Amino acid sequence: MTTEQLYNQIQQKKSFLCIGLDTDMERIPKHLLATEDPIFEFNKAIIDATHDLAVSYKPNTAFYEAHGLKGWHSLEKTIDYLNQKHPEVFTIADAKRGDIGNTSAMYAKAFLQDMNFDSVTVAPYMGKDSVSPFLAVKDKFTILLALTSNEGAFDFQIQKTDDDELYKTVLKTSQTWENSENLMYVVGATKAEYFKEIRKIVPDNFLLVPGVGAQGGSLQEVCKYGMNDKVGLLINSSRGIIYASNKEGFAEKAREEALKIQEQMAQLLS
Amino acid sequence: MTTEQLYNQIQQKKSFLCIGLDTDMERIPKHLLATEDPIFEFNKAIIDATHDLAVSYKPNTAFYEAHGLKGWHSLEKTIDYLNQKHPEVFTIADAKRGDIGNTSAMYAKAFLQDMNFDSVTVAPYMGKDSVSPFLAVKDKFTILLALTSNEGAFDFQIQKTDDDELYKTVLKTSQTWENSENLMYVVGATKAEYFKEIRKIVPDNFLLVPGVGAQGGSLQEVCKYGMNDKVGLLINSSRGIIYASNKEGFAEKAREEALKIQEQMAQLLS
Repeated sequence: MTTEQLYNQIQQKKSFLCIGLDTDMERIPKHLLATEDPIFEFNKAIIDATHDLAVSYKPNTAFYEAHGLKGWHSLEKTIDYLNQKHPEVFTIADAKRGDIGNTSAMYAKAFLQDMNFDSVTVAPYMGKDSVSPFLAVKDKFTILLALTSNEGAFDFQIQKTDDDELYKTVLKTSQTWENSENLMYVVGATKAEYFKEIRKIVPDNFLLVPGVGAQGGSLQEVCKYGMNDKVGLLINSSRGIIYASNKEGFAEKAREEALKIQEQMAQLLS
Repeated sequence: MTTEQLYNQIQQKKSFLCIGLDTDMERIPKHLLATEDPIFEFNKAIIDATHDLAVSYKPNTAFYEAHGLKGWHSLEKTIDYLNQKHPEVFTIADAKRGDIGNTSAMYAKAFLQDMNFDSVTVAPYMGKDSVSPFLAVKDKFTILLALTSNEGAFDFQIQKTDDDELYKTVLKTSQTWENSENLMYVVGATKAEYFKEIRKIVPDNFLLVPGVGAQGGSLQEVCKYGMNDKVGLLINSSRGIIYASNKEGFAEKAREEALKIQEQMAQLLS
């Protein structure tokens, strides 16, 4: 997918919502547990009920790996379903990988080629050669962790370095790498005041923004400081949407929550 | 496993060698490709031929994920084999994970509980709450990336922060976390001159050291500056051992390479 195609989808759906498929067996409706693949059945129902309101879906690989082989199978079925039934949506493997060059290339193959996700999240700690194998894949995006939404972000990411705070050094340095136009960045909504500074460094790249809703970030604040002329934002909500109900009508309830956010987004876009 | 048990094994085998099972279908002997699970067959042969010379085995998850479901199955079979046949060895899931707290807990479950690895490698970028779910698992170890062996280590890890270089801030900060006695650290052998400084900050923790051999690090230099009174080092070699030959007798060749290193280690220990 190209940035232009993503932008077109945002205009068409009047939405820049990403739904996080953090599918947890302990939290999904009990009646699904009797099916052969509860995780996939849950995801399918959520996707079917929300795909006109969301431009992106983001399974977090941890929730799948926690079930070993069976979970990995559910992940593969989920991405196959998205690619076949809803090829217009932007898919994100929220894997937070990163290793030495030849090893990162293996992860890039797994997520961007074999499973055919549009993008994968990557941790920057190991530097350029750990990220470049992802960036080398044509028409795919690498979403680099910059300033995350959790408390632990304050441990290292905002440390003052030679140059600037660490997360800004990550932004600046990564902009010098080959194919940097294929970069997006994770910036937590819980840190809305930082978006102004971030946009000075990366005016054009899309930002993937977790932390709206359950974690307390404000959609309005993020848009005020983070939006660019191609929107440039994917706002993720996971638990607030997918666990709106754990009863039979869970998918309709999830749709209601997604609709609330999409309606706010339509206003912000107009 | 406890540190004491690991130390006992080191004394018994006169070795602190870790063998990296970076098993790549493109590099294993061709005759194995006809078997049902070439990756597992390769790993099994390597383990059988070297387990008296190595105290630890470290599959890098990227090489398994690159084959999707089948690869994940090979990983599970490999760790099961190690746990059943060689319960004395220290097993490392080289996964370099790290996510917000509830998500890291899923990874901790997958690797330390369900698959029952003794340890898992974790990236520090997201800070305390991304690491603590791993540290919370009793009698298991969390191996935090500190100063890696690749070129990209220079991009961020040695950036001067408020306090000190970033990797030193990672070492110091993580030492204040609960259960920090369950921490080990990745420090690349290609940076032997750094070990002296590192040992001032973390005198007691084990260091997992990649980069000896193929990547050019010196075993003698690492031991000179990095060894403590419980040895405190696990020296990893992957390609130099497991790809010593790609012919029928590959396992014996791998043993020869492992023996060369073990003999050097026995000398350094005496």
